[in-house]
Amino acid sequence: MEPVTIVGNPVSPYVRKVLAACALKGVEVQLDPIVGLMGNDDFGRISPLRRIPVWVEGEVTLCDSSVIVQYIEETRPGPSLWPADPVERAKARWLEEFADTRLFDVLGWRLFFEIAVKPRFFGSEIDQAKVEHARDVELPVILDYLEGVTPESGFLFGDLSMADLSVAPAFVNAGAVQVNVDPTRWPKLAAWLERVEAETPLGPLNKLARALMRTPAHAHRDRLPEFGFVAASRSWGGGEVRRGPMTPQ
Amino acid sequence: MEPVTIVGNPVSPYVRKVLAACALKGVEVQLDPIVGLMGNDDFGRISPLRRIPVWVEGEVTLCDSSVIVQYIEETRPGPSLWPADPVERAKARWLEEFADTRLFDVLGWRLFFEIAVKPRFFGSEIDQAKVEHARDVELPVILDYLEGVTPESGFLFGDLSMADLSVAPAFVNAGAVQVNVDPTRWPKLAAWLERVEAETPLGPLNKLARALMRTPAHAHRDRLPEFGFVAASRSWGGGEVRRGPMTPQ
Repeated sequence: MEPVTIVGNPVSPYVRKVLAACALKGVEVQLDPIVGLMGNDDFGRISPLRRIPVWVEGEVTLCDSSVIVQYIEETRPGPSLWPADPVERAKARWLEEFADTRLFDVLGWRLFFEIAVKPRFFGSEIDQAKVEHARDVELPVILDYLEGVTPESGFLFGDLSMADLSVAPAFVNAGAVQVNVDPTRWPKLAAWLERVEAETPLGPLNKLARALMRTPAHAHRDRLPEFGFVAASRSWGGGEVRRGPMTPQ
Repeated sequence: MEPVTIVGNPVSPYVRKVLAACALKGVEVQLDPIVGLMGNDDFGRISPLRRIPVWVEGEVTLCDSSVIVQYIEETRPGPSLWPADPVERAKARWLEEFADTRLFDVLGWRLFFEIAVKPRFFGSEIDQAKVEHARDVELPVILDYLEGVTPESGFLFGDLSMADLSVAPAFVNAGAVQVNVDPTRWPKLAAWLERVEAETPLGPLNKLARALMRTPAHAHRDRLPEFGFVAASRSWGGGEVRRGPMTPQ
């Protein structure tokens, strides 16, 4: 059977989240590392919001990282991606939602996208006021909240779960634009981020992401083998740069 | 045992989505119909993004409508809220995500919030250009997509599921500001909306929402009994109007 194709570049935290789930569950994948902004017309058919990742398994295509992870959980054997207790599981899913919306709003759209993506893909200037407000006003509130839910040791819900693998990825993108978690102010969070990097499949995936950030997009496929990934035979990329309906201005 | 408290006003589509799930599963609830923008300090402690609904069951508090619905599914007997087939279930969850993000962005934030909420709660003027772009450019693309996934009869996945109860609610808010689905252009979608109204627990909940939209906020609790709801003994509302971290400008 053809392996599952994950469409989407590992620079995206949402793509790494899904790849981390695949690694935990032993799902064999091939990767089409397209930048979502450069998907072709067919990409718009499998991803109505022109977002990555997309799961392609034969005729089945699924959008949205949370939907895909839940599908992996329900269809693959292996360690559970979520805590066993229903209340803990709901709280873990809340942190996934918080990461996918509020945390990525700030770390992803207002910092990484504004500083690293907009100038490169759209040739537009960085909105410095937006960057400073995100970094100095919005982010500390988020980090205070996360510090309050992070344990001294272990992962967010004891054993590793999708809560960890949802919250951690975007911090790599923030780090790439020099926004880091100060360990003197948020010690539990900073130590937990180090544990996720050292002890989970997200560590190697983050290394891949950092490498791709320093590589021109057209050469991304060629770098996959050195990180143990197979490039997909088909690609949904190669179109012109265009905004999706939810890409910020 | 004290019934579960749902914190949040049924004018919110996300609150109605959760109340519809409770109705299907026979979960007894009491309702604290606060406007999210007027939550007090304690509300910020149970809802870090100051969003509604919140599920309060003894010491357990859960945020986010999707998280709450999944928790109901996993902890309550009764009809399944999702299709039985894993691929169908994933596609239904995708439509829930699409409704909660893109659909509500347009129907909720750019139309209902802009026209009906901002002037009333913030005294600010309606951005007519934003409203017209949302109604005339953005919404038709969304309705074309939904028309393409809506069947001629029955519900989105045959039997009623959370896909129906996630996509339908915000159309009531749009209707309240005179934005409706033209049945000559989107016939399957318009007919499906009528079926949801006539044949599911969302129908009575939508009637409650329409009544509350015409009632001053301070009198909302008093109107609940005529719609069969019990007002919660405790309230998390009554604070001053304030934006949450994700409330649009």
